[in-house]
Amino acid sequence: MSQTPREIEALIALMARLPGLGPRSARRAVLHLLARRDSVMAPLAQAMATVALQARDCIVCGNIGTAEICPICDDMRRATGEICVVEHVADLWAMERGGAFRGRYHVLGGTLSALDAVGPEELRIPDLLARVRAEGVGEVILALNATVDGQTTAHYIADVLAATGVRISTLAQGVPIGGELDYLDDGTIGAALRARKRV
Amino acid sequence: MSQTPREIEALIALMARLPGLGPRSARRAVLHLLARRDSVMAPLAQAMATVALQARDCIVCGNIGTAEICPICDDMRRATGEICVVEHVADLWAMERGGAFRGRYHVLGGTLSALDAVGPEELRIPDLLARVRAEGVGEVILALNATVDGQTTAHYIADVLAATGVRISTLAQGVPIGGELDYLDDGTIGAALRARKRV
Repeated sequence: MSQTPREIEALIALMARLPGLGPRSARRAVLHLLARRDSVMAPLAQAMATVALQARDCIVCGNIGTAEICPICDDMRRATGEICVVEHVADLWAMERGGAFRGRYHVLGGTLSALDAVGPEELRIPDLLARVRAEGVGEVILALNATVDGQTTAHYIADVLAATGVRISTLAQGVPIGGELDYLDDGTIGAALRARKRV
Repeated sequence: MSQTPREIEALIALMARLPGLGPRSARRAVLHLLARRDSVMAPLAQAMATVALQARDCIVCGNIGTAEICPICDDMRRATGEICVVEHVADLWAMERGGAFRGRYHVLGGTLSALDAVGPEELRIPDLLARVRAEGVGEVILALNATVDGQTTAHYIADVLAATGVRISTLAQGVPIGGELDYLDDGTIGAALRARKRV
């Protein structure tokens, strides 16, 4: 029955796939944009196209940036010999918001999962091992989520890295059981980082 | 402290202005897009740019379409002599989802508000009067929201149209007090349309 133009329906369908939006809220968002076509909609489309074109995964750590090597890996002041291993880029951003960590990162992209056929290669764990051997890394901080999958993956990485003799630690005090990094406040992340304990 | 590229921060800031998204959920949505740059993000940016460029307000009724005259005003089968007056394009879409109304629309773009300096001209009420005089309209159905502002505006329009002798009706049965059209189910909208009562 709808007389909505095809192009607008297509846009609503795409918006509805965003996390936090469903078909109805996507429709509301699109109507909001349609009422502000020049002031909001066109700039948003432009910003999104720019990011879609320019964004790329850092070849060293997996962070998202606009160059082959992300600003953190490119910053010599952050060559502290510490690598913080996180599941997702969202977790890296959460760590950076806290501002307590001055070393570099390694973004796994998820956790080990037999069910979803996610093995060590999919999580760039061999890359991590190579970095530890090549970069003169003194400590690897496993900042994985305090979930069963996160801790299983952390144990696996600790086993893989054991042969290298590198110091391995995990975030400790302050991470609530079952909680996820991206939802923590900055103070809690800082406290957990300072109180990290050796595996 | 953030090492997030400027372009990505700009995109998050724009996304956070959408209804239903805040700074944190906008960040999540952008990360979701960043992980699907080619499959979702680029098509979404393209769809949004297309709509921003092509969408325009129908010069007759105020509906949003891609031509000077929207598909409903352009459809001769809908020249039933009935005009349904709604506040927003969202309400028009809600009416169309119901499928009970086969006439044409007039989108006000809001309600009268002394506080926000919204007068009859801002709501295209003179245009409505001109349409009623020019198009041989037999009935005007005031399908405004059942809120104080909506009903105040409906009364004002009924007063303005009284001199033309056109039949004026309002949606009646089924619209809950304080409710808004866009949140009603299709059946309720249909029932309210069929049970409309003469002012």
